[in-house]
Amino acid sequence: MRVFANALHARHQGRHEMYRGRLVPCVEVPARVEHVLGELQRRGIGTLQAPVEPGIERLQRVHDPRYLRFLQQAWADWVALDPAHAAFDLLPSVWPAPGMRRDRLPQELSARVGLFAFDAGSPITAGTWVAARAGAGCAVSAAQALLDGERCAFALTRPPGHHAGADFYGGYCFLNNSALAAQALRDGGMPRIAIVDVDYHHGNGTQSIFHDRGDVLTVSIHGDPRTEYPFYLGHADERGTGAGEGCNLNLPLPRGSGFDDWRRALQQALQAVADFAPGALVVALGLDTFEGDPISGFRLRSADYLTVGADLAALGLPTAFVFEGGYAVAELGLNTVNVLEGFLR
Amino acid sequence: MRVFANALHARHQGRHEMYRGRLVPCVEVPARVEHVLGELQRRGIGTLQAPVEPGIERLQRVHDPRYLRFLQQAWADWVALDPAHAAFDLLPSVWPAPGMRRDRLPQELSARVGLFAFDAGSPITAGTWVAARAGAGCAVSAAQALLDGERCAFALTRPPGHHAGADFYGGYCFLNNSALAAQALRDGGMPRIAIVDVDYHHGNGTQSIFHDRGDVLTVSIHGDPRTEYPFYLGHADERGTGAGEGCNLNLPLPRGSGFDDWRRALQQALQAVADFAPGALVVALGLDTFEGDPISGFRLRSADYLTVGADLAALGLPTAFVFEGGYAVAELGLNTVNVLEGFLR
Repeated sequence: MRVFANALHARHQGRHEMYRGRLVPCVEVPARVEHVLGELQRRGIGTLQAPVEPGIERLQRVHDPRYLRFLQQAWADWVALDPAHAAFDLLPSVWPAPGMRRDRLPQELSARVGLFAFDAGSPITAGTWVAARAGAGCAVSAAQALLDGERCAFALTRPPGHHAGADFYGGYCFLNNSALAAQALRDGGMPRIAIVDVDYHHGNGTQSIFHDRGDVLTVSIHGDPRTEYPFYLGHADERGTGAGEGCNLNLPLPRGSGFDDWRRALQQALQAVADFAPGALVVALGLDTFEGDPISGFRLRSADYLTVGADLAALGLPTAFVFEGGYAVAELGLNTVNVLEGFLR
Repeated sequence: MRVFANALHARHQGRHEMYRGRLVPCVEVPARVEHVLGELQRRGIGTLQAPVEPGIERLQRVHDPRYLRFLQQAWADWVALDPAHAAFDLLPSVWPAPGMRRDRLPQELSARVGLFAFDAGSPITAGTWVAARAGAGCAVSAAQALLDGERCAFALTRPPGHHAGADFYGGYCFLNNSALAAQALRDGGMPRIAIVDVDYHHGNGTQSIFHDRGDVLTVSIHGDPRTEYPFYLGHADERGTGAGEGCNLNLPLPRGSGFDDWRRALQQALQAVADFAPGALVVALGLDTFEGDPISGFRLRSADYLTVGADLAALGLPTAFVFEGGYAVAELGLNTVNVLEGFLR
């Protein structure tokens, strides 16, 4: 399995996020990737390969040019406003209410931030753009590996991607790596692609990017948005619109669900994928379904992830794994590599 | 002049607001109203009268029932989540991106907060609902005074109101007092009402509440939203829609504008009011146009406010003043009462 690891991921290192009225230390930390890299090496799984550096036109296949310009420029604008800003990160403090205008880009940076952010948990730091763009390169490279005939590949990167939409960021995500991988597979000539999102949190960005398209099936198994982040999307009645009608499947589960219930949802997801008959599969690989995850609510155990990998492999599809969430840092390497080992067995 | 002062305003006392990535002490403080009360007494202007306590049906004339239930319940829900929450205020940390759903009310409080807030500068505190509701009573009472035949009345209250919409809060505002006064005048039988908003910041909530109505003219003179809060509304090309087409007038001015330019805009505003021929006028009276205001950018001087009052009086309309912004606390009494004295002369 080719592994494309983001060498620049640690350039994105947020200091604080807003949580219930207070600024608390960031949960999405560089050690997450380091633990997975260490475990891959320890178990001798995967071959590290250098990812491509994606051009802006590649990112624009999924993201809005206005949003990309903002993201690329935000930190420089922030520090230009006041050099003292370098000492802390950029978080939104105002955003458009319904009926407010999104057609005009405000000159004030705070207002531009609010135009593109949907939470105050995703700080923009000095290295956010560089890290996110390099991560997009890992996702695109994993897709290219499949186009080159590989059975599977792994994009090991952070910040994660599945909450980011065409023109918005949040949930620690800035560029939608899973969507970029799926689009690269489409652009490489495959007529239909499926994305299965197994992160604890609904892949709202991915769903929204492909919601009106019939060429990419999006499936997500996640904590019920009535109580779980991102709250405002991920219900079972969201099935896609227009050409995409029937091409989105949400499988929300109650907080506290264990592996038996989760695996039943996975089987339903995989049946939908098989029915769609895609040329390849993208797995948005979040590991925050783990029982020890500090911000999530399912009860999967480390050994369960071997089964998850084997279940995914049973589809018999070229498969790109794209790293998403997972915040039980110490166990993150074990759980991630269990999925890959289960897949490869 | 009857003065309806909010006796419960100090029950709303926010501790911190988010500003450019940091939590900073709140700018909208109880002393604001106390300074105005003191100056009224010192100069012998106005007669204090007890306001009515408005029923929920009165608030529902302007605000969405779902939003009102949220606001009434938010602090109790916040403390029920964790008694330790009483030590700090409720601020949003996630909100719906475009395409996310607003039709389902999340069970998680953080998500409900984000459904209704458009900034992280407006903390909900233990007394926010009680203070805001009492303030709405002051506004409705001022309107009733005009219906009773008074020439003018003054609703002296905080938190302010003009940024609050039918179902959203922000900009230190929770219930739209100016809109509630205008609606009370309509409900009292006057066929047409005009609102002139002279606060430094665009009255986005008021505009949005009446945007499709032809019976209430909304006019706002304010800092250009390209650089000034609330950023996403307040441009000159917003003229109202449907039955309200032509019934909204925005007069944005560049940051740094002095009284000459500002007064020219006021004359334009007053001409529009005269052309509309309303039965009464509501003045959304913000004093943050003052040169010493810490968060605003116009350069009006204290003596200018006497002229503002006189210009407003020249319309010859029954007039309800509703207190809005103004953060140069020490001069706030002088500047506010100058407007009233200029009007009464």
